[in-house]
Amino acid sequence: MTENGRLDVALFGAGRIGTIHAGNLARHPHARLRYVVDVHAPAAEALAQKHGARTASVEQALSDPAIAAVVIGSSTDTHAELIQRAAAAGKAIFCEKPVDLALDRARACARAVKQAGVVCMIGFQRRFDPTFAALKQRLEAGEIGKPEVLVITSRDPAPPPAAYIASSGGVFKDMLIHDFDIFRWILGGEAVSVHATGGCPGLPEVAAAGDLSHTAVTLRTRDGALCQINTSRRAAYGYDQRFEVLGSNGLLQAGNVRPTEVVAWSDQAISSDKPEAFFLERYRAAYALEIEHFFDALVNGTPVRTTIEDGIKALELAELATRSWREGKALECAV
Amino acid sequence: MTENGRLDVALFGAGRIGTIHAGNLARHPHARLRYVVDVHAPAAEALAQKHGARTASVEQALSDPAIAAVVIGSSTDTHAELIQRAAAAGKAIFCEKPVDLALDRARACARAVKQAGVVCMIGFQRRFDPTFAALKQRLEAGEIGKPEVLVITSRDPAPPPAAYIASSGGVFKDMLIHDFDIFRWILGGEAVSVHATGGCPGLPEVAAAGDLSHTAVTLRTRDGALCQINTSRRAAYGYDQRFEVLGSNGLLQAGNVRPTEVVAWSDQAISSDKPEAFFLERYRAAYALEIEHFFDALVNGTPVRTTIEDGIKALELAELATRSWREGKALECAV
Amino acid sequence: MTENGRLDVALFGAGRIGTIHAGNLARHPHARLRYVVDVHAPAAEALAQKHGARTASVEQALSDPAIAAVVIGSSTDTHAELIQRAAAAGKAIFCEKPVDLALDRARACARAVKQAGVVCMIGFQRRFDPTFAALKQRLEAGEIGKPEVLVITSRDPAPPPAAYIASSGGVFKDMLIHDFDIFRWILGGEAVSVHATGGCPGLPEVAAAGDLSHTAVTLRTRDGALCQINTSRRAAYGYDQRFEVLGSNGLLQAGNVRPTEVVAWSDQAISSDKPEAFFLERYRAAYALEIEHFFDALVNGTPVRTTIEDGIKALELAELATRSWREGKALECAV
Amino acid sequence: MTENGRLDVALFGAGRIGTIHAGNLARHPHARLRYVVDVHAPAAEALAQKHGARTASVEQALSDPAIAAVVIGSSTDTHAELIQRAAAAGKAIFCEKPVDLALDRARACARAVKQAGVVCMIGFQRRFDPTFAALKQRLEAGEIGKPEVLVITSRDPAPPPAAYIASSGGVFKDMLIHDFDIFRWILGGEAVSVHATGGCPGLPEVAAAGDLSHTAVTLRTRDGALCQINTSRRAAYGYDQRFEVLGSNGLLQAGNVRPTEVVAWSDQAISSDKPEAFFLERYRAAYALEIEHFFDALVNGTPVRTTIEDGIKALELAELATRSWREGKALECAV
Repeated sequence: MTENGRLDVALFGAGRIGTIHAGNLARHPHARLRYVVDVHAPAAEALAQKHGARTASVEQALSDPAIAAVVIGSSTDTHAELIQRAAAAGKAIFCEKPVDLALDRARACARAVKQAGVVCMIGFQRRFDPTFAALKQRLEAGEIGKPEVLVITSRDPAPPPAAYIASSGGVFKDMLIHDFDIFRWILGGEAVSVHATGGCPGLPEVAAAGDLSHTAVTLRTRDGALCQINTSRRAAYGYDQRFEVLGSNGLLQAGNVRPTEVVAWSDQAISSDKPEAFFLERYRAAYALEIEHFFDALVNGTPVRTTIEDGIKALELAELATRSWREGKALECAV
Repeated sequence: MTENGRLDVALFGAGRIGTIHAGNLARHPHARLRYVVDVHAPAAEALAQKHGARTASVEQALSDPAIAAVVIGSSTDTHAELIQRAAAAGKAIFCEKPVDLALDRARACARAVKQAGVVCMIGFQRRFDPTFAALKQRLEAGEIGKPEVLVITSRDPAPPPAAYIASSGGVFKDMLIHDFDIFRWILGGEAVSVHATGGCPGLPEVAAAGDLSHTAVTLRTRDGALCQINTSRRAAYGYDQRFEVLGSNGLLQAGNVRPTEVVAWSDQAISSDKPEAFFLERYRAAYALEIEHFFDALVNGTPVRTTIEDGIKALELAELATRSWREGKALECAV
Repeated sequence: MTENGRLDVALFGAGRIGTIHAGNLARHPHARLRYVVDVHAPAAEALAQKHGARTASVEQALSDPAIAAVVIGSSTDTHAELIQRAAAAGKAIFCEKPVDLALDRARACARAVKQAGVVCMIGFQRRFDPTFAALKQRLEAGEIGKPEVLVITSRDPAPPPAAYIASSGGVFKDMLIHDFDIFRWILGGEAVSVHATGGCPGLPEVAAAGDLSHTAVTLRTRDGALCQINTSRRAAYGYDQRFEVLGSNGLLQAGNVRPTEVVAWSDQAISSDKPEAFFLERYRAAYALEIEHFFDALVNGTPVRTTIEDGIKALELAELATRSWREGKALECAV
Repeated sequence: MTENGRLDVALFGAGRIGTIHAGNLARHPHARLRYVVDVHAPAAEALAQKHGARTASVEQALSDPAIAAVVIGSSTDTHAELIQRAAAAGKAIFCEKPVDLALDRARACARAVKQAGVVCMIGFQRRFDPTFAALKQRLEAGEIGKPEVLVITSRDPAPPPAAYIASSGGVFKDMLIHDFDIFRWILGGEAVSVHATGGCPGLPEVAAAGDLSHTAVTLRTRDGALCQINTSRRAAYGYDQRFEVLGSNGLLQAGNVRPTEVVAWSDQAISSDKPEAFFLERYRAAYALEIEHFFDALVNGTPVRTTIEDGIKALELAELATRSWREGKALECAV
């Protein structure tokens, strides 16, 4: 820790998500943003200047002994290498999901982290969303008894460009990886079977890219709980992030968040706001809270809630789902 | 039609659902309840007396030329024979779902109906629920564009007795047959694949009866629309009947109905009523409207909305789902 | 009671509300509609025929000893005379609100009813609305402690014709009389002060008729509870009937009723149905339940819930409110 | 402005609201907190240290030419003197409501501000609440036509200590001053009449302090729009801040904000969160946005939205309401 009680941090990635992290680091009492690293120099420069930090190369940032932690928000294909190098340099690591699109490289990262004995947290920010976290807490407090059925609805407002889809690793790794993490987190058990299917109704360009725009996944856990996930790359009304858990004694639902609580009564209908527009708005609080959690864990020496093992487990489910879809059959999970 | 402009009707079954139908027949301007037929004589007697009708045997009822229509609300194992005999007697037929638990017997009924040229309506009352029907109408009016994903939640408050389960034909025929009909009705296309799984979390007695208490079903239609159905035999909060359709331009949800619109604000929470208790309450209006539709169709010579073919299609899906579950794999549908 | 266990009834008024009552009488197991009386003969004829009844003059109906009860749904200016004649003839009386527009005539009716010792129920149907009645029951069960503040919102979809307004007795007697009854019923105490004001924003024709289209009334009860009523003759979105009670331990709200539970998510908003269109739809159940209550009370010899005294108390508040508005000051109530 | 493009600020008051303002100043790109002034030295010290500022006396802060603006969040009885001294020193002023409990002193402040030609903004933060501000914007865009009726519900979770009440200036100045500002802001016109009444049901200690715990106020504007305000010092379920505007073409409601969007379905009810606990939580965003607005106005030379005149107008209504209550009559407003 620095003399002023703050941990010096290097941020990799000055894009959309890096900018979010930079802002949250700036507001955090235990963090001090020192370096911004990005292959796109002007972006790094602008972000660094805004927060009183400097730009640096990967090597410079990792070789500075004053740097206690790195936050990795660069493109997916850089994650694995950065994790391994940061681990080797003894830095605490916060990395955006996914660890890597390839399971073997992700597992290599986990081994590197373990060998180095460094903290590594994966950015499954949804677990930090106030609504989702409150539901989880009430579930664990026994409010609805034992969870039996989880239904997840996860829809984006509009599909990403075809180029992005082509390099995304497919919808299950790119989009549902969050939902697989929610599944593991909420039902608290591993899957014994996975069935995935889907289609591209109205979005032939996604089909042309060899991917699915709409999916329907069913998972079963060892103790017989069920999970259904439905996702879409396009929802005319915006970003839709809901789930509900049926338990032996009741139901808990986690709903969307609205920008305002205005309700209009017209001669047509009674209308309230659409959900927050997209993930940056919907998970604004969650992004701040996950960074807070990371630094609290570092300062207090407590474990992080979303580990690299969680990242790998979610990736395994994404791979199984992809295979289930391609092979057109339900798959058992290796235990 | 009788001299007073009413169609004389024989009702088979004086149980719970028969009582509902009797009340609705009594209120209908085009129907006159003449006979109540039930193997349990006192029940038949009581119901007949309440509505100014008489008890009769099956034979008496069907051989009375004054009888224009029959309403079959007796136990499932009697449906097929009654349909066939009523068809042979030239009566218009309203029959509760399912046509029969066995597909071949159900198909024999359909052939008998066709040969006799009589009207035969199957009691898929959910299509007549004001909320579901309004959603369907708005969907057809193009409000949300082309339907892409249907998510159905269907939960009973508590499981039936083990004896009932043992003779029910299994949860897919007994309970999900309604949901399969909703699937066909809302997405307006036939399934090309079915995957069904389930479990009995917390309800080992259902497992012991060889059935599932909780199910998760996924269907895909010829034009790529997806449907997920989740059901449970037990919901601590009561009867839960919701579905939502994602279309290319928006989403339509059909929610539960509450007994009252009281909302209570306490130091714990803001609370509204649980849904209507069970199907007799939830579908009270639907039961009246389906009977109304049946007699309107008879009087006007217009087609009925839920035909015996619909009954058979839903039964086929129930059989496929049962096989999918037992064999642990997704199944293609014969086209 | 007749030999078949039914009370024979004469209905006065074959208009909109008379038609509602006729339908409810026809469905009631303890009532038999015998006569329909209306100065407009074709209306009386049509309604009588629909329900197997006969038309009659006032005299014929009241002089028939078989008639046990009368239901008065004719125009307001006929209420007082009919109540007095029916009381003199020893008939049980159900009369629509108001008893009369003039307090002295209304009080004369109350005396006549008392002298004759007949049952007289005033049609404050709102007390029988399932939502309002459930709230009242929960309030009495102590769910929110002692009531402290009542806020009533009461809006019509559109103003009646100017001619109607001119002969209506003014908005306080014509429209708010229901709200004054709700005030007395929910707070369970009499007013000690009344302040009323209002205006005609956007409805100069109401002002021209010497009346108010919008009102704001404040009442205080002997034990310090407060009530605010806001009403409007016009709400673009339809019929709005809500109230809420703040108690020492919480809040109870009674909301509007929607025709269906469809919710639509578009790129503009999330929208549900407007409230039921107008009073015939909103209070459909209440109209049936008040008639049921009336005949139950007659059959069981139990008291009716909305007496002629309630009708007079509400009228007194309407008069005070009218004076408060005209004189521009708050008024104390005579105790 | 300082060399780094920030305005140096002195904050008066290191209590609850001062702490909020300090945090928002710290996050603001155009503000730099230099001094914290508080008679309670340890509080000033702690808050100053947290944000890298220094403590100072009033004189030191106001005599430092580097200070461009002051934020006054100290106790009400200090507002007037601080406004006048800050105005004399040529500082831009942000001051919490009320300007002063006495109208003449408040008016003297307004004159001082005018003479000095400084910016002076009063902290009516509710106008900056995202829900309220969105409603206002939609109202101004004409969504519901001309506003006709405004109904404001404003309830605190629990009454302040008796000592506070005694020196608060009474509920109309202490609590409803916000609601009077909302009235003026939403209806966009001045009152022509005020009627106020109230009571202390269940809170005799408030009555003993010579104040009201519950109030009911009615206002009328020059063009005939009506406003009803109901307030309470105690709501078992927490902090309740809602209003609704009926317009000629529809209704707009501004509802409470919930901490999370979790909904629980139990065998008793369907329950969502209570509203945010109290004003610091409910208006968290509003407090940040008003400070943002103040500095934006300073930097851009644009007018502030809530002026000292607004503060005086609200205070005038509070005085009128107090008199109306004490004299037991409706009062006309001087125009």
